[in-house]
Amino acid sequence: MTNLAKQINDSPLMRSYIEGKRVAITGGCGFIGSHIVDLVALCNPEKIIVIDDLSAGTTLIFIEPYIESGLVEFHQKDIRDKVAMAQLLASTPVVFHLAAQPSVPFSVNNPYEDFMINVVGTQNILEALRVHENPLLVFAASGGTIYGEAEIIPTDEKYKLEPISNYGAAKAASEMYLSSYSSLYNFRTISLRLGNIYGPRSSHGVMYDFYHKLMKTPESLEILGDGQQKKSYLYIADVLNAVDLLVSKELNGFNAYNVASRRSTSVNEIADIIIDFLSLKSEKAFTGGNRGWKGDVIHAEGDIQKLVSLGWEAKTTISEGIKVYIASLQS
Amino acid sequence: MTNLAKQINDSPLMRSYIEGKRVAITGGCGFIGSHIVDLVALCNPEKIIVIDDLSAGTTLIFIEPYIESGLVEFHQKDIRDKVAMAQLLASTPVVFHLAAQPSVPFSVNNPYEDFMINVVGTQNILEALRVHENPLLVFAASGGTIYGEAEIIPTDEKYKLEPISNYGAAKAASEMYLSSYSSLYNFRTISLRLGNIYGPRSSHGVMYDFYHKLMKTPESLEILGDGQQKKSYLYIADVLNAVDLLVSKELNGFNAYNVASRRSTSVNEIADIIIDFLSLKSEKAFTGGNRGWKGDVIHAEGDIQKLVSLGWEAKTTISEGIKVYIASLQS
Repeated sequence: MTNLAKQINDSPLMRSYIEGKRVAITGGCGFIGSHIVDLVALCNPEKIIVIDDLSAGTTLIFIEPYIESGLVEFHQKDIRDKVAMAQLLASTPVVFHLAAQPSVPFSVNNPYEDFMINVVGTQNILEALRVHENPLLVFAASGGTIYGEAEIIPTDEKYKLEPISNYGAAKAASEMYLSSYSSLYNFRTISLRLGNIYGPRSSHGVMYDFYHKLMKTPESLEILGDGQQKKSYLYIADVLNAVDLLVSKELNGFNAYNVASRRSTSVNEIADIIIDFLSLKSEKAFTGGNRGWKGDVIHAEGDIQKLVSLGWEAKTTISEGIKVYIASLQS
Repeated sequence: MTNLAKQINDSPLMRSYIEGKRVAITGGCGFIGSHIVDLVALCNPEKIIVIDDLSAGTTLIFIEPYIESGLVEFHQKDIRDKVAMAQLLASTPVVFHLAAQPSVPFSVNNPYEDFMINVVGTQNILEALRVHENPLLVFAASGGTIYGEAEIIPTDEKYKLEPISNYGAAKAASEMYLSSYSSLYNFRTISLRLGNIYGPRSSHGVMYDFYHKLMKTPESLEILGDGQQKKSYLYIADVLNAVDLLVSKELNGFNAYNVASRRSTSVNEIADIIIDFLSLKSEKAFTGGNRGWKGDVIHAEGDIQKLVSLGWEAKTTISEGIKVYIASLQS
């Protein structure tokens, strides 16, 4: 199991802040969450509490070595369980909150269930942390959905939030509470307004779908919409660098950061890169319309200047990243 | 019972839109809600459904004549009751959603209860309306709290939301869903980003408190904070005009409007106006600090240009409005 966090830097910048602390990671069995477990594990924490309900096909596979070594204490719990969250976080002042219903289409078709997981669930985490003096909450928000169809692209963190999907609304709504809790109860909060994150261990998203479609029918590739939708795709290792840097800064109050690539890439270009990497000659078949699905933002691109000004820069190009990711799916 | 809506204009602009429709007003027994009932009643609706849990000392007094005439159907229900909301709104495509936990300090001290009422409650209303083809939701948001401590004053609707109280977070969070539901499910939504609204029937807020303190001890007036906190106070009749105008425009999608006075007024000035109106010579005693309470925004002032461009203008000055209001408290 490739440990990207360790490959990047086996002595993270945030180590001095994390060392000796109990740290919880919700959604720690999932794609981004399990990489964060790897990152935190490098920081000599007292204990890592992983909270995951193992929904959506996630397993213990990525964190198993840590469970065996005793570093990770695993709890199969749903973040909607307020009592469980309060118990698990009662002595855990640092939380990376990654657990979420991750699908925009699901949020559109099941708005209340999505709301209960992504808004009420996050509220349960905030409430559980309120017992601590100066807790840290790092939250996975979504730069690709919270701004909606922004008129200014790239879109910076001061731009108004006007989501067009419930997934985006949930992330934006939760940010409102990160803001108030930071002001009222001495929370440190970091909202990672993530672009479309991809890389090893991810089992959803356009690249994952394209790869599996091509394995099934290499001669043609169905592309939802017209393929012109453009998003800020970012390789997971660059996210880990951003998280490490932001936590190391020990920022006070509420802090929102776009974490995205400098340029957006169209779905069509991604298809070309994957087809090329697999040495195929697939015909592309577009389903038509300018959105992949209801609630899909046609062009999402975060302005990353705020994060760059702290010294961060994405190190992996989209074609390099896709190749590593697709290779990981092949193996 | 003074009917301000009727005094302003007994043939509202929004009549052609409302006429013949079933219209629900949550919080319709309260201050703003009951004035909206008066306004809607002038528009010849098929039926007005008033939903109110009669908490916080509200009674049926303001809507009793309409219940007797059969125009209003009253339901004592809590907006947290999702099943009841779905039933009551199943054939009611127009909702004025005023029901809320109204206190910033309560929201700070009881964050989860406030969240359940003001966020989950609003979500229940949105979900209930989703069965309709093209529903209208008019929502009482809060221009005085959702922007937090804005760096630009007056603050326009494009300014980012960064609330410092849970009350403000709840209103901002709900707006995120008004935005997504408008985009996804063909809702018309109007978010009234209200300043501090005052006038007859209001039984909370700084003017109400000052009046009652002065009745008890006329020789001195305790003022929370340093009295320099400035807010956009707006007389209720001017709110009714704004609501009437906005509904009459039959706007599509999500629409946020600051509804506030052109200038903000300090708490200290309000104290002076009331002391003067009551012909008292009270000493003012400040409790100190620059906020009235935790989560209090020191200077909140909405930029009203967007609403003014539709033809609205506040017609009542602060001193005129306060006099009418205090006189109503005396009678």
